[in-house]
Amino acid sequence: MRSTVYLIGAGPGAPDLITLRGFRCLQTADVVIFDHMVHPRLLDAAPAAAERIDVGSAAPQPTDQEAICYLLAEKAREGKTVARLKWGDPFLFDHGGEEALFLHEQGIRFEVIPGVPAAIGATAYAGIPITYPGGGDTVTFIRGHEDEGREKAKVDWDSLARLEGTIVCYAGPKQLPKMLDALMSHGRAAEESAAVIVNGTLSSQRTITGTLAELAQTFKDQPVSGAALLIVGKVVNFREHLRWFDSRPLYGRCALVMHSKEQPDDLAELLEAQGAEVIVDTDTKLDIYRQLLDRKIDAVTFTSASAVLSFAANYGVEQASDLLAHTLVATLGPAAADAAGRAGITPAIQLQSGSQASLADAIVAHFRGN
Amino acid sequence: MRSTVYLIGAGPGAPDLITLRGFRCLQTADVVIFDHMVHPRLLDAAPAAAERIDVGSAAPQPTDQEAICYLLAEKAREGKTVARLKWGDPFLFDHGGEEALFLHEQGIRFEVIPGVPAAIGATAYAGIPITYPGGGDTVTFIRGHEDEGREKAKVDWDSLARLEGTIVCYAGPKQLPKMLDALMSHGRAAEESAAVIVNGTLSSQRTITGTLAELAQTFKDQPVSGAALLIVGKVVNFREHLRWFDSRPLYGRCALVMHSKEQPDDLAELLEAQGAEVIVDTDTKLDIYRQLLDRKIDAVTFTSASAVLSFAANYGVEQASDLLAHTLVATLGPAAADAAGRAGITPAIQLQSGSQASLADAIVAHFRGN
Repeated sequence: MRSTVYLIGAGPGAPDLITLRGFRCLQTADVVIFDHMVHPRLLDAAPAAAERIDVGSAAPQPTDQEAICYLLAEKAREGKTVARLKWGDPFLFDHGGEEALFLHEQGIRFEVIPGVPAAIGATAYAGIPITYPGGGDTVTFIRGHEDEGREKAKVDWDSLARLEGTIVCYAGPKQLPKMLDALMSHGRAAEESAAVIVNGTLSSQRTITGTLAELAQTFKDQPVSGAALLIVGKVVNFREHLRWFDSRPLYGRCALVMHSKEQPDDLAELLEAQGAEVIVDTDTKLDIYRQLLDRKIDAVTFTSASAVLSFAANYGVEQASDLLAHTLVATLGPAAADAAGRAGITPAIQLQSGSQASLADAIVAHFRGN
Repeated sequence: MRSTVYLIGAGPGAPDLITLRGFRCLQTADVVIFDHMVHPRLLDAAPAAAERIDVGSAAPQPTDQEAICYLLAEKAREGKTVARLKWGDPFLFDHGGEEALFLHEQGIRFEVIPGVPAAIGATAYAGIPITYPGGGDTVTFIRGHEDEGREKAKVDWDSLARLEGTIVCYAGPKQLPKMLDALMSHGRAAEESAAVIVNGTLSSQRTITGTLAELAQTFKDQPVSGAALLIVGKVVNFREHLRWFDSRPLYGRCALVMHSKEQPDDLAELLEAQGAEVIVDTDTKLDIYRQLLDRKIDAVTFTSASAVLSFAANYGVEQASDLLAHTLVATLGPAAADAAGRAGITPAIQLQSGSQASLADAIVAHFRGN
């Protein structure tokens, strides 16, 4: 069978929001060619031997669109299975259409695996139903003005302002105030509700709500630093009731789960389910060290003596307690607690017995209390 | 930890277009409450002991929206993990917002797992890039008029007709001609390109293209039988070049892969990758029997003697050859061919040696020749 290029939507941000089919294609890839907004954890799904090529605009040497097309064709001609991973959906405000057309012209087989668009994923995680009875019967997505290498979007703001439904603008940092002004000057009420979402569906997701006028002022004063989504419409008002993602007890907290050889790693998922950003101790020792130094890790868990020993070995027995001075340390079982004591670490939570779920509960209770 | 209701987007149709996160939540469910457009194979992902409740409008007794809300709350109060599975995305032209608000008011924890909307998935599989440079910088989705229990959609067709971008209408059978007329009478050109997609992303996906005027006539004469998507815009013209899904060699064919105890089942995936709808011999003997009788199965594969014996045992040695008289029979290996011969079955493809991939290739070559 001939080789295939899969144009895959990686989804809106969180690595588990890719489709099953996209994930499986990724697992068969010889080459992964990805954009800068694709989550790094997704790249781990490809076989270890697969070549990984960053062609995003934040790559050390961003690749232009024509070069990306030729790269896809070249790898396919070498008989390789190519996974072309894109943020959101490959066809929505992206270059998937151009890449597919190029592959067609070159006689190279391709498939398109759709993805959850950022506009759909980020609103779901912000607790904003993109449609609601009474909130209008249309949803309009608008391309950002500032996409690299493409001309300014032509939008009929007059018509757009008259549609009653929800509007979602893909907005770069500079254009957010302009889009807000355009909506108001073409007839949307300055008091209409709107929201701006950055880092949608990631543990760092941030949602700012206000009226069109308020948001225009806010983002003139303090521009956002990356890609943002602007949502306009009555549906924004539901966020107050429906926010589930950033109201979870560990939202905004970062936990380091030290791997235990003796026990399965349920703890990472248990803490993530409560909203925490979880770092699992793998081989990124320097990153973890830096984050501990910067006090960016709120909690560290040890569920066995070996986990403590591994921490002490990585960061030095002398330094271990200093590094953890401003962090919640939680141990499960007497062996982990003893080992911590010997390494000079004082756990604030010492669960003598119980499951990983009860340890997660204790951590939630700790931060709820603070 | 308290029980949770997951409002999950099942995606546009194909079961592997659900998100990883949606799939994992489904695997932990005690109760699955699903709509009628959710693929049956997705229900298999839930634990065998999980309760499965069909509340869709095609269910024997469709459940009204208020009753669904109470059902979700009731199951959650029993301490159960509830997966609420919906076609496409839970918040896009669906009742996810109402269900979330009800759960919030009842103090029940919920999470929203977005899904690939039908409008995104079906267009990707039809080879229609929903946006393309020069094809306008907006995409507008329009709710169907005929959703059960909801009033007629209010759409400002004048404004909509003036937006240059792509329009996707979620359309019920009766409203398709009305929507086409509305677009033309409010200013979209009768010669503009459009497409209608039914059964999006399924092996039965069908795409009809034409001008607005042509499609209006077509669907007045022959109404579609289920939910359809109407896509309007220049981007439809790309389908001619970008159709990849329904141009695969086995598209529109149905293959029965008889399970072999001796070998892994790669064949089903290999045939699916070529576009076939694949039935794997499990315990749905009556269904398979009916489809064989109705000549709806185009090919049957046997990769071992046991597979042949199992077929003969299921459908009677006497009847086996009659049932397969109008079907391509393909065997791999001498044992399967011998067993077929003894059961009175004459395989048109007898591969003495080789891999399952070469058997799939031989089947593709057979149908290409026809």
